[in-house]
Order: sequence, then C-alpha cells, then structure tokens
Amino acid sequence: KRHTTDLAAVPCCRYVSKAAAKTQMEFEYDGPSMKTEVPGPRSKELTKQLGEIQNVGAINFFCNYEESRGNYLVDVDGNRMLDVYTQISSIPIGYNHPSLIKVMSAFVNRPALGIMPPENFPEKLAESLLSVAPSGMSRVQTMACGSCSNENAYKAMFIWYRNKERGHNIPSDEDVSSCMINQSPGCPDFSILSFMGGFHGRTMGCLATTHSKAIHKLDVPSFDWPIAPFPKLKYPLEEFTRENAQEEARCLEEVEDLIVQWRQKGRPVAGIVIEPIQAEGGDNHATPDFFKKLRNIAHKHGSAFHVDEVQTGGGATGKFWAHEHWGMDDPADIVSFSKKMLTGGFYHKDELQAYRIFNTWMGDPSKNLFLAEVLNVIRRENLLEEVTRSGKTLLQGLYQLQDQYPNLLSSARGQGTFCAIDIRDDATRNSILLKARDKGVLLGGCGDRSIRFRPALVFKEYHVHMFLNVFSDVLAEHN
Amino acid sequence: KRHTTDLAAVPCCRYVSKAAAKTQMEFEYDGPSMKTEVPGPRSKELTKQLGEIQNVGAINFFCNYEESRGNYLVDVDGNRMLDVYTQISSIPIGYNHPSLIKVMSAFVNRPALGIMPPENFPEKLAESLLSVAPSGMSRVQTMACGSCSNENAYKAMFIWYRNKERGHNIPSDEDVSSCMINQSPGCPDFSILSFMGGFHGRTMGCLATTHSKAIHKLDVPSFDWPIAPFPKLKYPLEEFTRENAQEEARCLEEVEDLIVQWRQKGRPVAGIVIEPIQAEGGDNHATPDFFKKLRNIAHKHGSAFHVDEVQTGGGATGKFWAHEHWGMDDPADIVSFSKKMLTGGFYHKDELQAYRIFNTWMGDPSKNLFLAEVLNVIRRENLLEEVTRSGKTLLQGLYQLQDQYPNLLSSARGQGTFCAIDIRDDATRNSILLKARDKGVLLGGCGDRSIRFRPALVFKEYHVHMFLNVFSDVLAEHN
Repeated sequence: KRHTTDLAAVPCCRYVSKAAAKTQMEFEYDGPSMKTEVPGPRSKELTKQLGEIQNVGAINFFCNYEESRGNYLVDVDGNRMLDVYTQISSIPIGYNHPSLIKVMSAFVNRPALGIMPPENFPEKLAESLLSVAPSGMSRVQTMACGSCSNENAYKAMFIWYRNKERGHNIPSDEDVSSCMINQSPGCPDFSILSFMGGFHGRTMGCLATTHSKAIHKLDVPSFDWPIAPFPKLKYPLEEFTRENAQEEARCLEEVEDLIVQWRQKGRPVAGIVIEPIQAEGGDNHATPDFFKKLRNIAHKHGSAFHVDEVQTGGGATGKFWAHEHWGMDDPADIVSFSKKMLTGGFYHKDELQAYRIFNTWMGDPSKNLFLAEVLNVIRRENLLEEVTRSGKTLLQGLYQLQDQYPNLLSSARGQGTFCAIDIRDDATRNSILLKARDKGVLLGGCGDRSIRFRPALVFKEYHVHMFLNVFSDVLAEHN
Repeated sequence: KRHTTDLAAVPCCRYVSKAAAKTQMEFEYDGPSMKTEVPGPRSKELTKQLGEIQNVGAINFFCNYEESRGNYLVDVDGNRMLDVYTQISSIPIGYNHPSLIKVMSAFVNRPALGIMPPENFPEKLAESLLSVAPSGMSRVQTMACGSCSNENAYKAMFIWYRNKERGHNIPSDEDVSSCMINQSPGCPDFSILSFMGGFHGRTMGCLATTHSKAIHKLDVPSFDWPIAPFPKLKYPLEEFTRENAQEEARCLEEVEDLIVQWRQKGRPVAGIVIEPIQAEGGDNHATPDFFKKLRNIAHKHGSAFHVDEVQTGGGATGKFWAHEHWGMDDPADIVSFSKKMLTGGFYHKDELQAYRIFNTWMGDPSKNLFLAEVLNVIRRENLLEEVTRSGKTLLQGLYQLQDQYPNLLSSARGQGTFCAIDIRDDATRNSILLKARDKGVLLGGCGDRSIRFRPALVFKEYHVHMFLNVFSDVLAEHN
C-alpha cells in the first residue's frame, strides 16, 4: 500500500517559479489527495461486478460523484484527483456546482417533447440554448445525445437538398412508394462529405463520416461517401504560415474535386460536416482562412455546411463556440452540440427546417433547466474570460515544457483551455497518462499520441499551475 | 368559451351497466376536468412562441407536469385529462408518483458511464435492468434513447457476425485500412432483415429497417437490406386460426427466400429485427408460433435474432416483456428497450459481446435510479396483475363497442392494456381522437386508421370504465 499523498501540501517549486496558489473556491477542495493506486481495490472490485453485466474494457475506475467538487473528481477509494478530462469534456462548471444542486424539480416526468412540452419549455429554450445561438441562427432542435444530433442534422440537410432539387417539398407517388423499400428516388443516393481524422459519432449515419480510429468503424456496413484530407499543419500555426497555407489549399482543392466526382457518380454532396478542431482525431487545428474558404465552396456547390461543435462548443476555446474564432457573420447552416451543453441538439438556418425530424423524447427538458443555470454561472463568473486567461497560461506552460523536453514533447497547440500536445510515442503517452493519474491529475488522450486537455470552465490559473507542476514531475520521469 | 365539464361528476350510465367506480388512489385526481378546448389559449400562445424557435407541427398542447398526477395529464390551460397515451407510451407508473419524487440525488453530474461510472452503478443495474432481464440474458448495455439502442444492437450483431465469419476477432490489415474509407471488407456489406410495417427508430441504421410510414423515410439515403412481409392477421386471432396460420407460413417462407437471395447478392443477413407487436405500424399482432418459427429460421441461417421491445417492454402487455407470451426459454439474442424503461439500452447474449460499443454518455445513471424505484412500485403494487385485469376489461369493452358499431369499429385486439382498434377511416379516427380529448381523454393513433391504447401501468379497472364511457359517447356522435 502506498502512502497518502496530499500534493497541494507538498512544497512545490518544480515547474518554473510559480507555486500553485491556494486561492479558495468556496465549494472546492484545495488539492489532489491520493490514498491508493488508481484503480484502487474498491474500483477493481466494482469493475469485476460490472464485468458480469457488461463490457468493462474502457472503465478507468469508479467514482463517488457525491463527494466530487469543482475541479476534483473523487473515486470510490477516496482518491481525489484534479480533473483535466471532465467526463470526456462534458462537465461544464465542475462537479456539484451549488447553482445546479438548487435546480431540482420536474425531473420525474420525462415528456414526449415534440408533442407535449412543459409550459416553461420555450422560456427555458430562450434562456438557455437560444441565448447562445451562433450568428445567423435562431432555430434549435434538442436531441438526446451527440450522435442523434448529428444523425438528425444530416437528415435535415438531405431533406433540404431534396426539396431544393424538386423545387418544392411535395414528394411524388414514386418517392413515397420507393422510400418504403429503401430505394431511390424516395431514399436518394445523397452523400455527406467528411474529413479524414474527423469524429462525428457512432450511429450508422455518423459513423460513415467518422474517420479517426478503425476500432470505431470495423465490421459496420457503411455508405459510399466522399472523404477529404484534413490539413496537417505545423505548430505554432503563426510560425509556419506559408507551409500551412499551402497544405490548406491542397485540401480545399481536393474537397472541390470530390464534390464534382461524387456528383458525377450520382451521389451528390448534400452537406459538408467538419469540426472546428478535430478533437478525437488528435486535436488538429486549421486556420480561419481554411474554414472561410470551405464555407464558400459549400455555398458554390449548393451543399449545406454543418459545423460539429459537440466537443468544441460550450466555452472551452475561450469563445462560446469555436467557430466564433473564424470571425464570420454567416459561419454555418447547421451547428450541432452535446457534451458541455448537457443536452444534444442542433441549431439550423430557417431554410433547413427541422421538418420531419422527430422522435419520442427529443432530448430531455431537465437538461435545459441545468443548462440555463450553467449559462448563468458562465456569465456571472465571467468564465469565458477565465478560460482565456487559464488557457494562455496553460499553453505558455506547455511551450516552456516543450522547449525543456524537445525529444519528448512537440506541437503544443490550443485555443482557450482546449489544448493538446504530442508525445514521443503512443507507449510514452499512455505511461504519462497513468503516472499523472497516480499523482492525482486526470488527463485524456486523443489521436495516435496526443494528450488532450479538457478541464471544466472553472479551471483557474492556480489549477493550471498545480497541473503543470505535476506534469513537469511526470515528464522528468520519462525523459 | 365552453363550460367547465367535470366528467367524473356527471352521472354516467352510458356504457353498459358499470358506472365509473370512484375508487381512490391517494395521490390522484378523481376524473377529467376540462376548462377550455384543447389546445387552449395558453397552449396556442406558447406554440406560437416555440414556433419562432423550432418546428411545432407535431405539438398537441403544452403541459403542466407539476400538476399532473397518476393517470391525469394537466395542460397549461388547466384542463385535466385521463391519459391513455402517456407520452407515446413512456410514463410507466403515472405522473409524479410519490416514490419517484423521493429519488432526488446524483442528478447533477452526468458521468461518461463507459469510463467512470458511479459507485452504485452495478448495484443499480442489478436492482433495475438485470432484475427484469429476459430469459437467457444476463448482460445489458444502457444507451440514451430507443434509436441509439437499436443502432448499437445492430452494430453488435454485425461485429458478432463478422467475427463468426473470420473464425476469430482479430481484424486484418486490409480490414483496418478499408474501414477508414467506408469500404469492404472493413465495412462489410452485411444487412439486417426487417418487416414491412415495422418501426425501429429514425437514425440512419434504424431507418433502413423502419417501414411504417413514408414520412419517416423520405429523402434520407438508405441501405439495400431485405424487407419481409409481416403477417396480416384477422382478429380475434383465436377465431381465425387456420387463415392466420396460412398467412404466417407465407411470410416465413418469404423470410427464408430473402435470406438466401441477400446472401447470394453478397449482402448476408447478420440479424433479423422484429417487434413482438408492430406498434407504430398499426398494432399488428402475430402468434407465438410465428415468432418461434422465425427464431428457428434465424438460428438455421446463422443470423442473430433481435426483438425490439422499445414500445412493448415494461409491463403493458401484462408480462414484463411482450415476448414472454411466446413461452420460449431462449427467445432472442438481443432485446432492446427504451420508453417505459426510462433509459434506452439492450440485453444481449454473452456471445454478442457489446464489444466496441461505446459513446460518451452511454445512457444516464439518473434514469437507472428512477427505474429501480419504478420496478419496486410494479412489484409492490402487483401492477402486472392489475394490467392483465384492466386489459381484459378494456378489450371486452372494445369487443362490445365493436358489436354495437360494426360500421365504425373493427379488429379490436390487445395484450394486457396494449390494445388497439381500427376505425372506419383516417378522417373519422382523427375526429374521434380530438373529440375524446375535448371530453378529457387523451388517446394516440397508429397505422393508417387505428387507435392505440397506451395507458400507464397504474390504469385501473375504474379508469377503463371511465374511458369506455367517454369513448362510447364519442362513438355515438360518429355513427
């Protein structure tokens, strides 16, 4: 058995000169506190129990959500960890925020939202999702999860594209009869153009546009849809502007070629789907110029432009939506979201009516109540400014460590606290993740050999320093 | 403006001899109470507001979920209706059941269940989903909604089928590289056999197996998968056994033909998906003999057998799962659920490991807490017996009304309270639905001209009489 280590209590002057400031957040702990290895004995026991019921291959450890606070996740063995991964980036304002604990009503009766919504539904939509609607969009459709959001966004694009083709929205008798047996013209051979390295979910439509890891796609039938290369840029972006611009131009040219090719083979591209930062695929960035030009290509060829903000949306990049960094008035036709937004769904332009988009639950209004409160906290506590500040400190720290360990680290990159860094190789990356966890810092991987940072929006500068201290120690062990 | 009608207060001797007994359920109302037409002015106002934000074509009216109790849904205009539709059959034990109101904790932090489940997750799974696992199944995977459940069940069948084909579960290099670009062999041309009239959800994989209404499928690309005829039986089933057996034999023969055809065209049938009662498609029943033989055909051809209990599961047929009426020890390889189960998901046999089935949320553990409590109530209050009793009374009442109005009604059918009846035509059906609603009874349609009854499990015999009285009045107006 190992000793309990309370890292915040250890004098720390390991990372540069700043000690982790012990500023108080009233409801938070003051540092990690480790009692066992992770997973500890209780986690292992529970993993065994759950293994009798379902696949447990992905389980890290079991958690005590009641005891978790702010940036600290407590596990069932009493280990308290600084959480820089936050349930795959889906806990927006930390654990058990007091503002959320207050919102405890109307959870018991889950309505069929599409047909019998509760009285406060429009008001809560206005307070929550609409109050942060992307530029140019005033309509939103809620859904249960990220995959459902993208699936239904694709359907909205297909329906819109077909109506445009028809010149009206009245299906012919042949449309109606052929669709019942999965045949064209009722089920037309339309396609969605996606990017290599992209991740848009795991249901069958989404999966046909997901190309981050083979393990997601293996053995599942798919669609013959075009896949364009995503720019492979050099970081920091501002130091390699010329090469990066060339690479982006190459990818855009390929996009146009694919649109033409697929039109020629009778599978026209109804929509283009892209993440503002490819997250699951390895935190791959592109420049605003790339996205602006891609948007223009979509316009030119009559395809809808769908920006998938499931992972990037909700404030972690320092703006509420990552696409706001592009500085466009009319950035997209569809913007989908989930995770930090607590509910899935998508914003869309008027002309992409979510016509015929329906299911029993259509999301869950209890999540809107929480989201309204999350947004209040974000505004009241100026969390986007905080994120920008923490993110700057985090990225500076990563640059510094990268200079210090050039054989170990490369390509530090980020927007807000939505940061990542590449590690020498996959094995080292995984070892760093585990060692950091044993020292009480919870991180996630992405791509082949990247670490992604996905803290909550309440991750302050002193949390950054606390993290950098631990990270610096772990790196020293791997040099 | 219309007068307030408190129907329970009106002396009633309209339907046969039984008056609606005024037995008390401590937390329930004693009858409908209508203050306005439905939708009333407040509902209309809110529909207008919501129309600015999203499509409102399907909205009936807005609800006051706080004031709703038991079998009564209260709308925002103060109308109190006996609810025989229950959020498209998804409120299991009525509105605001006191046992559920008590379960109010751990709702604030939604975990990434696949990687960091809460401590009580195995225990709550055992108390809830596992305690009602179908025969032969001890494994369950939770999901956010019905469509996700079926999509992921299909994926589990594809993966299982491919591993069987390979003889092991190690993908080749060619599998890995081809799947990244949506091509075979990595993304194999497997198919799922489904039935005309079936409904399995609206994401793209599910939609390729849904064939109930054109409106669900129009304009969305699909897969070339086989579609078999579902038996069109005559009701009551026991009066037409010979014709019905012939019709079922015809359909089974077609199933085998399709499996062979699709294997020959290089799209082997990895799985067969079917509902125990086709719900959305019009409450179409088949006999236990049909399902047993279909199960044998699946076995014979090496296809998995997936029973979709999203609508039928949870007790409404008088057994917890509708497939229990088939009396088989080994009824299925996969059973999917949602709606009344409060969480989506699927049970599966050991060999259909939910291997590589993953997403961020993987359901929502707060729903398991509720479900555990729902199951306690079902057991404590013997609700399955109650459902059987109420269902018998309901079906007898429908038979009687059908004899009384032979030009208006036909094909009354049902199991437990999961009942339906056909109306002369679509227009009359819709008029009956609206008239009943204005008299305080909430019903749903299905198929072309059926009414489906989907009350909660707390729908007692006296609620049946109350309903039959109102229904009888409405029918008299349409004769």
